[in-house]
Amino acid sequence: MLRQAALDIVIDTRGRGFYEFTDKVSVWVRQTGIATGLLTLHLRHTSASLLIQENADPEVRRDLERFFSRLVPDGDPVFQHNDEGPDDMPAHVRTALTAVNLSIPVLNARPSLGVWQGIYVWEHRRQPHARQVAAHIIGE
Amino acid sequence: MLRQAALDIVIDTRGRGFYEFTDKVSVWVRQTGIATGLLTLHLRHTSASLLIQENADPEVRRDLERFFSRLVPDGDPVFQHNDEGPDDMPAHVRTALTAVNLSIPVLNARPSLGVWQGIYVWEHRRQPHARQVAAHIIGE
Amino acid sequence: MLRQAALDIVIDTRGRGFYEFTDKVSVWVRQTGIATGLLTLHLRHTSASLLIQENADPEVRRDLERFFSRLVPDGDPVFQHNDEGPDDMPAHVRTALTAVNLSIPVLNARPSLGVWQGIYVWEHRRQPHARQVAAHIIGE
Repeated sequence: MLRQAALDIVIDTRGRGFYEFTDKVSVWVRQTGIATGLLTLHLRHTSASLLIQENADPEVRRDLERFFSRLVPDGDPVFQHNDEGPDDMPAHVRTALTAVNLSIPVLNARPSLGVWQGIYVWEHRRQPHARQVAAHIIGE
Repeated sequence: MLRQAALDIVIDTRGRGFYEFTDKVSVWVRQTGIATGLLTLHLRHTSASLLIQENADPEVRRDLERFFSRLVPDGDPVFQHNDEGPDDMPAHVRTALTAVNLSIPVLNARPSLGVWQGIYVWEHRRQPHARQVAAHIIGE
Repeated sequence: MLRQAALDIVIDTRGRGFYEFTDKVSVWVRQTGIATGLLTLHLRHTSASLLIQENADPEVRRDLERFFSRLVPDGDPVFQHNDEGPDDMPAHVRTALTAVNLSIPVLNARPSLGVWQGIYVWEHRRQPHARQVAAHIIGE
């Protein structure tokens, strides 16, 4: 019998960087008792992203950050909107270039991630933030 | 009892820019009577995007446009495909760099957007277009 | 009566490039007998993408590749992580800039794609890979 569940997850960030929460999601999926279905995560912000990336070598995330810092430089004079500082508008652009929601099939009571895939909040602001993720699962 | 509904939405654009349709989506979600569930939007085009971004300061969207215009310049000589003009291929690239579908949990009969999040069609072509969005909701 | 189905799809790539599998997905959707619903595809890798793009003029894909090769150059000295060669880290960045999952409403027993939309695995590595896609459908 198909059914659904929802959960609000809060990820506290300590400024720009990657915050993995794969385990938090996986534990919740198992707790719902849904073995096969669909998991959806939506980040309720416009200056951070949800990212699925390699969770093995941390150098991958450092390189991602280096690349994006060069592509969308803080304080770029092309930006007019900088009420909250030089990282304000770059955070919005990084968010547009990545994603704020993820959809992952659930199999065997687990998100069907690849061996090397982890789920991250990618904080784009320099200050700490409490980031809210709306999680939803449907299946049986 | 879980159930679903679908809707075709047409957004008429007046050329390159952002067209918010959060209200149109929210009204439909409420009309379906589904209080908890999952909302999906899919844009049926390859030269425009679906974007969730800040709906407060309009300068944010202008800066996004300025950044993308610089990153993917119209008429860039790297592009061979320009049957429909200098904005043809840049529109495809912008689409690849952003998203054409969105997945948003529904809570309390509303899409669980953040306070500052709006849903936009981002038109990348300079000419007006009628953009089709396939909407789907499942829940109860 | 709502129900769901899941399928593992393997796409064998021959190195960097675009591999359309729209037909494979459409055939499976029809076989499930679900006429209205939601289709989700998730790529279980961090160095390739799922992309919806124009399936008419192949020049569009060649231009996409040219643009991304320039934006994220192989061997870029900004990258430290290059255990698997000069295309290793660029593949992760391209994946972050695009998408690894897609959500498409199903109508009339077909994914509600636009006339020109095809579904591709975009292989970012130079070597051939067997890419796994987790597919899920729910509806009736």
